[in-house]
Amino acid sequence: MRILVANANTSAAITARCAEAARAAAAPGTEIVPATPRFGAAAISTRAENIVAGHALLELLAEHAGQVQAVVLAVSHDTALEGARQLMPCPVLGMTEAACLVACTTGARFGLVTLGSAETYRELVARHGLSGRLSGLEGVAMTPQQAVADPAAAKAMLRGAIGRLVEGGADSVILGGAALAGMAAELSAEDPQGPPVPLLDGIACGVKLAEALAGLGLPRPRAGSMAPPQGRVTSGLSGPLARLLAGG
Amino acid sequence: MRILVANANTSAAITARCAEAARAAAAPGTEIVPATPRFGAAAISTRAENIVAGHALLELLAEHAGQVQAVVLAVSHDTALEGARQLMPCPVLGMTEAACLVACTTGARFGLVTLGSAETYRELVARHGLSGRLSGLEGVAMTPQQAVADPAAAKAMLRGAIGRLVEGGADSVILGGAALAGMAAELSAEDPQGPPVPLLDGIACGVKLAEALAGLGLPRPRAGSMAPPQGRVTSGLSGPLARLLAGG
Amino acid sequence: MRILVANANTSAAITARCAEAARAAAAPGTEIVPATPRFGAAAISTRAENIVAGHALLELLAEHAGQVQAVVLAVSHDTALEGARQLMPCPVLGMTEAACLVACTTGARFGLVTLGSAETYRELVARHGLSGRLSGLEGVAMTPQQAVADPAAAKAMLRGAIGRLVEGGADSVILGGAALAGMAAELSAEDPQGPPVPLLDGIACGVKLAEALAGLGLPRPRAGSMAPPQGRVTSGLSGPLARLLAGG
Amino acid sequence: MRILVANANTSAAITARCAEAARAAAAPGTEIVPATPRFGAAAISTRAENIVAGHALLELLAEHAGQVQAVVLAVSHDTALEGARQLMPCPVLGMTEAACLVACTTGARFGLVTLGSAETYRELVARHGLSGRLSGLEGVAMTPQQAVADPAAAKAMLRGAIGRLVEGGADSVILGGAALAGMAAELSAEDPQGPPVPLLDGIACGVKLAEALAGLGLPRPRAGSMAPPQGRVTSGLSGPLARLLAGG
Amino acid sequence: MRILVANANTSAAITARCAEAARAAAAPGTEIVPATPRFGAAAISTRAENIVAGHALLELLAEHAGQVQAVVLAVSHDTALEGARQLMPCPVLGMTEAACLVACTTGARFGLVTLGSAETYRELVARHGLSGRLSGLEGVAMTPQQAVADPAAAKAMLRGAIGRLVEGGADSVILGGAALAGMAAELSAEDPQGPPVPLLDGIACGVKLAEALAGLGLPRPRAGSMAPPQGRVTSGLSGPLARLLAGG
Amino acid sequence: MRILVANANTSAAITARCAEAARAAAAPGTEIVPATPRFGAAAISTRAENIVAGHALLELLAEHAGQVQAVVLAVSHDTALEGARQLMPCPVLGMTEAACLVACTTGARFGLVTLGSAETYRELVARHGLSGRLSGLEGVAMTPQQAVADPAAAKAMLRGAIGRLVEGGADSVILGGAALAGMAAELSAEDPQGPPVPLLDGIACGVKLAEALAGLGLPRPRAGSMAPPQGRVTSGLSGPLARLLAGG
Repeated sequence: MRILVANANTSAAITARCAEAARAAAAPGTEIVPATPRFGAAAISTRAENIVAGHALLELLAEHAGQVQAVVLAVSHDTALEGARQLMPCPVLGMTEAACLVACTTGARFGLVTLGSAETYRELVARHGLSGRLSGLEGVAMTPQQAVADPAAAKAMLRGAIGRLVEGGADSVILGGAALAGMAAELSAEDPQGPPVPLLDGIACGVKLAEALAGLGLPRPRAGSMAPPQGRVTSGLSGPLARLLAGG
Repeated sequence: MRILVANANTSAAITARCAEAARAAAAPGTEIVPATPRFGAAAISTRAENIVAGHALLELLAEHAGQVQAVVLAVSHDTALEGARQLMPCPVLGMTEAACLVACTTGARFGLVTLGSAETYRELVARHGLSGRLSGLEGVAMTPQQAVADPAAAKAMLRGAIGRLVEGGADSVILGGAALAGMAAELSAEDPQGPPVPLLDGIACGVKLAEALAGLGLPRPRAGSMAPPQGRVTSGLSGPLARLLAGG
Repeated sequence: MRILVANANTSAAITARCAEAARAAAAPGTEIVPATPRFGAAAISTRAENIVAGHALLELLAEHAGQVQAVVLAVSHDTALEGARQLMPCPVLGMTEAACLVACTTGARFGLVTLGSAETYRELVARHGLSGRLSGLEGVAMTPQQAVADPAAAKAMLRGAIGRLVEGGADSVILGGAALAGMAAELSAEDPQGPPVPLLDGIACGVKLAEALAGLGLPRPRAGSMAPPQGRVTSGLSGPLARLLAGG
Repeated sequence: MRILVANANTSAAITARCAEAARAAAAPGTEIVPATPRFGAAAISTRAENIVAGHALLELLAEHAGQVQAVVLAVSHDTALEGARQLMPCPVLGMTEAACLVACTTGARFGLVTLGSAETYRELVARHGLSGRLSGLEGVAMTPQQAVADPAAAKAMLRGAIGRLVEGGADSVILGGAALAGMAAELSAEDPQGPPVPLLDGIACGVKLAEALAGLGLPRPRAGSMAPPQGRVTSGLSGPLARLLAGG
Repeated sequence: MRILVANANTSAAITARCAEAARAAAAPGTEIVPATPRFGAAAISTRAENIVAGHALLELLAEHAGQVQAVVLAVSHDTALEGARQLMPCPVLGMTEAACLVACTTGARFGLVTLGSAETYRELVARHGLSGRLSGLEGVAMTPQQAVADPAAAKAMLRGAIGRLVEGGADSVILGGAALAGMAAELSAEDPQGPPVPLLDGIACGVKLAEALAGLGLPRPRAGSMAPPQGRVTSGLSGPLARLLAGG
Repeated sequence: MRILVANANTSAAITARCAEAARAAAAPGTEIVPATPRFGAAAISTRAENIVAGHALLELLAEHAGQVQAVVLAVSHDTALEGARQLMPCPVLGMTEAACLVACTTGARFGLVTLGSAETYRELVARHGLSGRLSGLEGVAMTPQQAVADPAAAKAMLRGAIGRLVEGGADSVILGGAALAGMAAELSAEDPQGPPVPLLDGIACGVKLAEALAGLGLPRPRAGSMAPPQGRVTSGLSGPLARLLAGG
């Protein structure tokens, strides 16, 4: 099985970090195909950059349509998720969506911690219809660059935030952000007792759910809001994307 | 005051229709500046096309930044709205958002009717946090092309749907879709008694709210999730859009 | 255009303060008509006083029916709003309602600060169906009288509360309470950098939305829960109010 | 124990009907004290009339403060409920509120049927925070006067509506409206098998909950949003109401 | 009237404490019948124990079917409530459910304090559809055993938690947990001014609502999700429980 | 990997049907271990039977603790799910929960169809916090026995219900009920065009998610509402269950 791990940032370093986390989670026999978009922000941090990334992601995905059995969006805002799901002939998972769904299977409510402001994650969880299961958000006052420069400080701040989320009723904690891919495993391994609650990595959760969905082999819908595009007329788009929208 | 009426479809006919509805609603002294995006779908009807349109809209808006006092997004899915709001130095209104807010001032709950499937409008109203005020949705089984070809049939079907929405508790009804711009006024004028409840046109509502917001003269935020982009590094974007994201 | 700014407190000083804020926001050509009710509380601060004020407001509005093109209720609990809307032949806006709707157009979530306890504003935002967009409430431990006596202390406390609301995720902050009319503009002007997020004045928002709605010229409904009263039989009410309820 | 059954309509016939239903439900030793307000609508049917009735109710209640051990508001919109609760030194129940709370103890979800439009009951149930337990609303196209004139027809229509509500998932059905006081018992008695689900009469439920609350003997709050009025300055109100607001 | 007060813990001491609180609340003429289950946890504190207790409770209730006029479940998680309600030929109240419903009649929002973690009460309030009226939860870091050993310390901690809940907007506070039965009355009596807001005891509230419901005399449903079991085939259950499930 | 498929009905035929569906979905290398409880209802159809089944399920699971890598509860009410999750040292999935989570990854909203009344599934979806993603419920008027006796009629009725759910906005449809295990695959295979939207089988979804979760290898929590039982004192329980509750 081939799973596309599609970054929405144009930074290849983030793609590499996500691919590594994906490979650590993949089953034997699953091949991880990392990909980076052609245009957009090096590291998305505003709403406007995220919108541009949606187009870039769809263009990227269209190039791989038919050559992968599932897609994991390696961008924590689950950018373009519903559109990608409608467009692609295979399952598509958002990394934060996947972590939220796994969180639902491990306890009553979950928390989420990220680098920088966490506010827009509240909207993301609401978009997924899961606000009732969110116990709290924590934003750690550190940029991804600072976290790379001083990992010990970053981990200390993350542990503090995780502790506050557990105090606030979290049965598991999602580490949000592509820049934190792999961090859940590191923090868990370094804690001699194990973490207080399961720490969830969106990439790992995405890969496992992608494998599960590919295994289920559900057909594409013919009706409803996810029926594939047919005969859409567009201009100015990449060839593969225009062809997928034209259908047939 | 100059208000940009930015279509997200590449069809100039829809832009013209929206501009006409906007001019009919504008106050004396308000200039309507219509605009059509460089790339994308002729008429958005899938989730994937809508995502591409987000990028196209931001590119289009960036070209007008500083030259207009407000923006109305002439696309009924309020495409890219939150990103446009963060990006632009002036108020930005979505046409369906504007109609929903006006609906809130005219009664308890509102209905929405559109051509084709109405399902994704449910998500849109939820995104605006207004699900509790939505009484119902009606999708009329007709394409915009068919509605243009047989306006009498379209109006009959719309009147039927409006009647069902009023029956279901709507105190006002939104006519959703850029292709229906101006239709609320037509239907209202043709009904000898007047319509059963106010019929709301997203473009008209958007223009009036845009005038009101421009008149309020609120400052841009320095903090929060809408603080303007600063120093964002991007590649492959249009010059004006890249410059707005870079800030300064 | 004439806009009635109807206080629900019997204190003429509050009416004057609100009228001043309304005039500062009004467009050229808009005349502000201030009014004070015949009976009720000098300054509403309990649920019971607010209920009495509902009757007083409707009596006051009925006297102006047909002579104004819109009404702004200058009472922060949006007292009698839905009843007034059904009764009057012109648009009616609540001052906090108006601020909430404007807040929706400026960001994801909004906060609200007021003098005294803020708890009942939670119910008000819920009544408007906007709980999902409320980030938090702050009640400043100061009466309107104390705020008048020591404006510097009041402003310091309000700035502190606004800071906490921004910290908690507010993209804008409403200054609730007729006694704070005009304060948003004062606080904004005195901050050398401008406020951290837009500060919203219910009276100013109400006036601008009233102008917008009057400009839209929506018809009154013939059906639904806002259809005008017809043939209602009452006793003991003021002549103008009884006549409006009797309809015709 | 003396329970005030306070009508908010000025029609003495409705007061009598409610008093009768209250006496049928009261425990031995409970005295029902019916009361009719001094001013307002003969039979409330618009939002505006309901607001006026709030003042009339508070004036009426104030006259009985200290002389009754509990109050049931005999008006199906639970008019002025929260204000009355804050004002009075004894428990206050709304008739529809009481029926909703009893419905919660008899099954998962409840329906509500009324004469005329049922739409505003949706808002009432939301105001009580119970929207999640409402299965559906039915409005029977008949006025109270018509129901009195042709009770057989009214009962047939009510039975039809109850059947549809049960079909839609109601585990009990509230008969909303003071004009239907006593009807639940009549319909139940006339059905040879008994009703399909319990039929709930707001007056009967209100009386039983009023007895229960009076029996609990809870103290009045000193804090929170229901702390009694103290030192409120008013003008133009009835003596008893002004005195209660002034506290002491 | 005989009311069964059914503990779900196998500890007779808790049964006795609840019976005492029930008797203090009961009307003259109400007989309290305490009961303890045959198997299960001495003091439920995990989700798994609570599930086992559901079976034990139904077995216990079945033994009393027909011999009591109402049931109060003396377990703060309202264990097996909906199943018991469907099974039994008389009203069944959960102690926390009863406290929540009484809280709804005393103010806008309520808080809840318990010994140990309070998190699962959030789920319980949501199950009752009342999340919108919950202002906050407080868990006091003390076991029931410690509270018995040092009641002064327990009361001090409870008073602190109650104060924080009132600060957070509670108009009343529920003391959750069968081990706290009677504590609301003790705390109220010992406060010279009376408590800041009403303190609610689930057992007392349950007994009063049980009396009220028994007095209403509602019929059992023939339809809907609470229609009594008929002809259910089971194995391995106690005789009385199997017979109730078999119906007839 | 060994996955326990634990029926909560005592009917071995249902266990066999579920085991067959589970084996059809399982990956190579996954062994399905079917199990039937010692006591309870042959086929759960009331709330009371479901509560008894919770105890039976926990007893059954405890016997397999440590010998399986994951558990799927083969009962459509996700009976005892949260308790089982806390109790067991491996992942536990409910079959309807699993189908709901998979539904979330395939579209915006999902519908659910079952044999008999569907009302209690509304509560189940709410318990999972997913009410916002439920488009509708359909109950087919047929017992499992009748469906076995006349499968063609059952399939026709199911297809009709599925069509109505798709009409109502479902992007996928869950076939609820252990008795329908395997039916989604049958209906999908027999439709020449494929089904209009994906049909979801709770057992198949449960098995794939169980494999995914076992693969993730999340640690058990030390804190929060899912921390394993420790030192719980019980009486009358089976040895394995008592030992798991005692912990250590």
